[in-house]
Amino acid sequence: MLVNGTPYRTVWQDRESGAIRVIDQRKLPFVFEIETLRTVDAVAEAIRDMHVRGAGCIGATAAYGMALAAAEAGGAGDFDRAVAESAERLIATRPTAVNLRWAVDRQLAAMAACGRVSEKLAAAEATAQAIADEDAEWCRQIGRHGLEIVRRIADTKPAGEAVNILTHCNAGWLAFVDHGSATSPIYAAREAGIPVHVWVDETRPRNQGARLTAWELGQQGIPHTVIADNTGGHLMQRGRVDLVITGTDRTSRAGDVANKIGTYLKALAARDNGVPFHVALPSSTFDWSIADGVRDIPIEERDGSEVATISGWESGGEREVRLIPEGSRASNFAFDVTPARLVTGLITERGICEASEEGIRGLFPEKFALVTG
Amino acid sequence: MLVNGTPYRTVWQDRESGAIRVIDQRKLPFVFEIETLRTVDAVAEAIRDMHVRGAGCIGATAAYGMALAAAEAGGAGDFDRAVAESAERLIATRPTAVNLRWAVDRQLAAMAACGRVSEKLAAAEATAQAIADEDAEWCRQIGRHGLEIVRRIADTKPAGEAVNILTHCNAGWLAFVDHGSATSPIYAAREAGIPVHVWVDETRPRNQGARLTAWELGQQGIPHTVIADNTGGHLMQRGRVDLVITGTDRTSRAGDVANKIGTYLKALAARDNGVPFHVALPSSTFDWSIADGVRDIPIEERDGSEVATISGWESGGEREVRLIPEGSRASNFAFDVTPARLVTGLITERGICEASEEGIRGLFPEKFALVTG
Repeated sequence: MLVNGTPYRTVWQDRESGAIRVIDQRKLPFVFEIETLRTVDAVAEAIRDMHVRGAGCIGATAAYGMALAAAEAGGAGDFDRAVAESAERLIATRPTAVNLRWAVDRQLAAMAACGRVSEKLAAAEATAQAIADEDAEWCRQIGRHGLEIVRRIADTKPAGEAVNILTHCNAGWLAFVDHGSATSPIYAAREAGIPVHVWVDETRPRNQGARLTAWELGQQGIPHTVIADNTGGHLMQRGRVDLVITGTDRTSRAGDVANKIGTYLKALAARDNGVPFHVALPSSTFDWSIADGVRDIPIEERDGSEVATISGWESGGEREVRLIPEGSRASNFAFDVTPARLVTGLITERGICEASEEGIRGLFPEKFALVTG
Repeated sequence: MLVNGTPYRTVWQDRESGAIRVIDQRKLPFVFEIETLRTVDAVAEAIRDMHVRGAGCIGATAAYGMALAAAEAGGAGDFDRAVAESAERLIATRPTAVNLRWAVDRQLAAMAACGRVSEKLAAAEATAQAIADEDAEWCRQIGRHGLEIVRRIADTKPAGEAVNILTHCNAGWLAFVDHGSATSPIYAAREAGIPVHVWVDETRPRNQGARLTAWELGQQGIPHTVIADNTGGHLMQRGRVDLVITGTDRTSRAGDVANKIGTYLKALAARDNGVPFHVALPSSTFDWSIADGVRDIPIEERDGSEVATISGWESGGEREVRLIPEGSRASNFAFDVTPARLVTGLITERGICEASEEGIRGLFPEKFALVTG
């Protein structure tokens, strides 16, 4: 997508030097900076310290990291052992990130299928590129399918009146390689000439909505308004939200959606006001092993300091300020689970389905053959 | 209630000097400071610039301001005219605050009932004291009635296990003269030896929960945890909230509750998880003229800068930092309306009733005689 008018991906490999380039997301929206990663160690640090974040973006960055691992191992005595050690180092950076392990394993398999070191090197580079391209393409397909939902709503409105879409957290292109999941139908609608306006939940405590989603929408010229997370219910009561689209960090095979804390509250408000509530996800986000998401998806509890303090911009620099009294404690649950009964539909790269085992099976029958067959 | 172990009200009159003293709430929780107000102008400024806030606290402060107005008018040629001018000045400070006009009008009536200026002066001082005492007493009664709800929950738990109460915004003693509305049952439970733990919604954008509720609970030694506003639904799904109690800024005669933005989302989550959702209010908060609150209670839209920025403590001072990108806009709706169907009960100074016209009529029949009789 565009940054200052120039198209970017969140991660790519420089063709000449072979170095990996990423957008350093820690500094957004205040500073836009490209970071160059020349070693596996640098890639590991970028993932661990969240220079990059978001399932698809982490997966692709790790895949490119494995291409560097192959290059570093090229001169080593034991190529396979050196690569395996790099793989372990990368996987250890964010142990719960499903896409990270998946990308690294796919790279190991690609290299294992080759005989000579030169072939392994070529396979690692090609596989990294394929993983990144596939991520971008899946997100593009999500946009193509989701566009039809936006179009149907636009068709019920007076010509020129914007479709109001609410989103929570950042399931934007910054979380993937390109396009994003929840944002992809928004970008597709814009391209199709359908006017849209996005309500951006700020998404405390880490404010990915206020920082990242607002920034990326602004860069594409999409009209948007940042709101406190408390606001969506009121807007829905007043008819000012036509559609909710969020992403997800993990979705059960029955359609229960784990996503950034607070998603469940918006789903309840959508249901209470007859507003469609859609979740956009590449199929890599399904956890085929879990049926009851509310019961079985583990919820990460992060450090309370993310609630007790906040970081923002002042006088040309970023500063952290304390929000709660000395002596008060704060809790920080990172995700919640929205039960499938509150989800109108899932927008995947293969199309839209009902948030139910039956609905998901219809689009991904081969996954159910593996799990329950 | 206690501050550093000493009992305080939010506003009182110094017996010797006649000056009005208030807790300057702008600086909490980082600095505790008593401000002395010696003139009507100083009182008007304290209300307008929110040194004091909260319905009951504003009303009592204005009532004391009218006592100062009488003292200032004592030497004037036209006493009544001077007092009337002060009354207008006070009312103009926060034009939508129902309690403010009510307190000033009550003072004017009390003085009008007296003949001599010396009698008017005495009446104004006595009425200010009566208004403050009544506010404190009503809140104490709310605590007495609400205590029974907490006790019934405690009785279902193993001995010693805390009742978990979630609250939103600050309907604490800082918003009244003493005790508070939503917090009064909590303080009463503590006094009755029932262990309680409070989940404190931070309450973006102005963070009255993180700043004021957390501070006042800490000062009373009540165990509490500050959470992002997004968190309550997840906690209720996991059985970690036994009871929600909030305050209200205006409640329709049918029991629809206007309160700080985000209250409606918590009410939805409470309903979805079978958690009782109670609203505590002195009867002065009812708007007897409104039946359908969702339709007819006007919602104040405040400046977006309260969402775009936040203020906190850093290096011994308070600082404001920017949270959203340059070029993004922010909206700031201050309240939402929770429909009566989601409210388990209303806790008033006369007892607890169902959130319905019938329920409210049962406790306040004389109000319905006036409106609909």
